[in-house]
Amino acid sequence: MVTRVSRRALTTTRVQAVDGDSCHERRDQLVTEEPMEIRLCGPGQDPVPLVVTMRTPGHDFELAAGFCVTEGVVESPAQIASIAYCLEGQAEQHHNVVTVGLRSTVDLAQLAPRRFVANASCGLCGKITLDDVESSCAPVALGPGVSRSVLVSLPDRLRAAQPLFDATGGLHAAARFDPDGTLVGLREDVGRHNALDKLVGESALHGALPLVESVLLVSGRMSFEIVQKAAVAGIPVLCAVSAPSSLAVAAAERLGQTLVGFLRGPRFNVYAHPERVELAS
Amino acid sequence: MVTRVSRRALTTTRVQAVDGDSCHERRDQLVTEEPMEIRLCGPGQDPVPLVVTMRTPGHDFELAAGFCVTEGVVESPAQIASIAYCLEGQAEQHHNVVTVGLRSTVDLAQLAPRRFVANASCGLCGKITLDDVESSCAPVALGPGVSRSVLVSLPDRLRAAQPLFDATGGLHAAARFDPDGTLVGLREDVGRHNALDKLVGESALHGALPLVESVLLVSGRMSFEIVQKAAVAGIPVLCAVSAPSSLAVAAAERLGQTLVGFLRGPRFNVYAHPERVELAS
Repeated sequence: MVTRVSRRALTTTRVQAVDGDSCHERRDQLVTEEPMEIRLCGPGQDPVPLVVTMRTPGHDFELAAGFCVTEGVVESPAQIASIAYCLEGQAEQHHNVVTVGLRSTVDLAQLAPRRFVANASCGLCGKITLDDVESSCAPVALGPGVSRSVLVSLPDRLRAAQPLFDATGGLHAAARFDPDGTLVGLREDVGRHNALDKLVGESALHGALPLVESVLLVSGRMSFEIVQKAAVAGIPVLCAVSAPSSLAVAAAERLGQTLVGFLRGPRFNVYAHPERVELAS
Repeated sequence: MVTRVSRRALTTTRVQAVDGDSCHERRDQLVTEEPMEIRLCGPGQDPVPLVVTMRTPGHDFELAAGFCVTEGVVESPAQIASIAYCLEGQAEQHHNVVTVGLRSTVDLAQLAPRRFVANASCGLCGKITLDDVESSCAPVALGPGVSRSVLVSLPDRLRAAQPLFDATGGLHAAARFDPDGTLVGLREDVGRHNALDKLVGESALHGALPLVESVLLVSGRMSFEIVQKAAVAGIPVLCAVSAPSSLAVAAAERLGQTLVGFLRGPRFNVYAHPERVELAS
């Protein structure tokens, strides 16, 4: 599986490339980072701004749907009636404003205190006080086990399918695998949370949540918000190429998720719920 | 220069360490990730919540001061009269709620629409609509040049002074150097924006802004928000070990900052304002 690269996801630039005492100007490709505003409306309502996220263009509707699901804006993807680009205003913003239409009226008074502000790597959204930080995820179902041999194969499977990273070296990936190691979904973004939101949003729009038989691999570190968003999507096994944080481990422990870190070569560490990892195979 | 590691910045855990077909349980150290709420008040006012950020404990007052400066909550560090931990409420929150006291009364009505929600890696804060994304940074002064030989030496100087990364492998660093390559400031955090806010906050609390003679090095990628925050602090030269995004390059170009990416070994790329880089030395 190779993901199609949106042309908008890459930006061409000129760069002064220095190597020792030589310097030449050449063409280079950057990962595109642009703000996207998500607006929300119910039937007959004017859209209201929900969040601005710094994201890599592409899979914008999936990002909008995934954000609404993993941040609890909607309790179920079935509440989403439509997703569309805003075609008003300045031309260059046509693809940077996405309106999510809900089946029922939006209670603006309820939304107001939890307006979201996110960025390239932001997931703690709409939670103004410490008391709000822990969301009310249900513990994740046990689901299938995953073998050691499958786990150690996942980073290579991810890299082989990462077209944007190859082009720019500058972004995060979130990938979803079956327990047998088959890659079934992959999204890349300048923001690690956006990559996961796009991945979950794709499943949300296909009515495929919760992802009770999925193994998630993220290209970087494992933060609290990644664990929390994955829990909302029902993902039982979470893997990171790099280190988890203390709160990520605590959250995975509490929410019943298996957390694997430093998944590199033949090695990995299991930080929470090792019962799903089959070491003998 | 070696930065002192706060005990609170590390969390000890037990881990199942797998290597090939062997597995043993051992002690491991995680970087601590905890929410910190910043509250704001003027003379005689009750504190109001401003933001919750997921951060690594330590240098909390610098983080609070740096956030207020780089996000434009205060126009000058001189407006900050006091910074203190909140000693009310639950015991475990004593060090996770920081109150910033300002010299003048806080206009809650003006603050309300730009309440900030940040996380470990969040910098796009208080900006609900696209129109608000570009803040009104003044272009950065030209300042001193920096030689090629100094630039290529910076990553090793950073790593040599990174105690937390050595312990956990799990966090971002932001370092400030003089143009001759002397390391003058270093902060580490699970959030790249927090690391920079702590670095800037330290200078803010010492009355040392703007940092017109500084070279910034970040351990990861260079995002739009890093460029923007550095511009507010007046930093003219920005370096990243990894890739910049398209908007980071565009912002640096517009704000008059030199942007160096992929600073590794003898190589680097200059993406904006190469006039400060002295290639011959």
